[in-house]
Amino acid sequence: MNVLGNPLGVQLLAEVWECNSDKLNDVKTVEEVMVRAAEKSGADIREVVFHRFEPQGVSGVVVISESHLTIHTWPELGYAAVDIFTCGERVNPWDALESIAQELDAEEAHAMEISRGMKNLSRLKKKMDRSKE
Amino acid sequence: MNVLGNPLGVQLLAEVWECNSDKLNDVKTVEEVMVRAAEKSGADIREVVFHRFEPQGVSGVVVISESHLTIHTWPELGYAAVDIFTCGERVNPWDALESIAQELDAEEAHAMEISRGMKNLSRLKKKMDRSKE
Repeated sequence: MNVLGNPLGVQLLAEVWECNSDKLNDVKTVEEVMVRAAEKSGADIREVVFHRFEPQGVSGVVVISESHLTIHTWPELGYAAVDIFTCGERVNPWDALESIAQELDAEEAHAMEISRGMKNLSRLKKKMDRSKE
Repeated sequence: MNVLGNPLGVQLLAEVWECNSDKLNDVKTVEEVMVRAAEKSGADIREVVFHRFEPQGVSGVVVISESHLTIHTWPELGYAAVDIFTCGERVNPWDALESIAQELDAEEAHAMEISRGMKNLSRLKKKMDRSKE
């Protein structure tokens, strides 16, 4: 714990490569993969929206009580851009990512974990100034 | 242009602070703000999903042909976590963010721009190895 506090949310930005192209191009499969990942991570699913694009590619979002999971696929490249944004201690976004990478037969995946909603110094300073008034 | 090519998508991760708390807590307002931002950026809107949480906070997604916009709000902190993910040259995610920050009366906002889907060296190497076979 430091002066900037704890993050309000944790976000994984995952670059998932060398996936099964047929799976990436099948909207039903991608939707099922994402929903199962949300379930495995312990998330509470609120809404599921998926689209298939012409000539190829799928985009989709799973809105969860704890924030969201998104995916955009490029079947011709074997690539999927996956985001997993979670709040609270209960849901582990890495569990969701592991499930997605496995189910898409990814041979390569890397991710960055980003802390969202860290307090910022100027905001803390304003608060301190206000409390002095 | 380098060996890693051009990104497939561009994503803004925006930390938007000191917003109007009443706006952040009103699901209809947040939805309108996000839809207008998508329109101003030139995006083609596919689907709009917003939820209000108890006791406070709004989460929402605008799915666009060019990827997505998401928001999660903490009215009690005046904070919104905004993501804008776009593909192609036509949509400018910064236009969307400017619109969102203005409409939420944000006094402070900062964002990182992240390139998604850059080629990676191991993938290129495999391709070269294959072409030699």
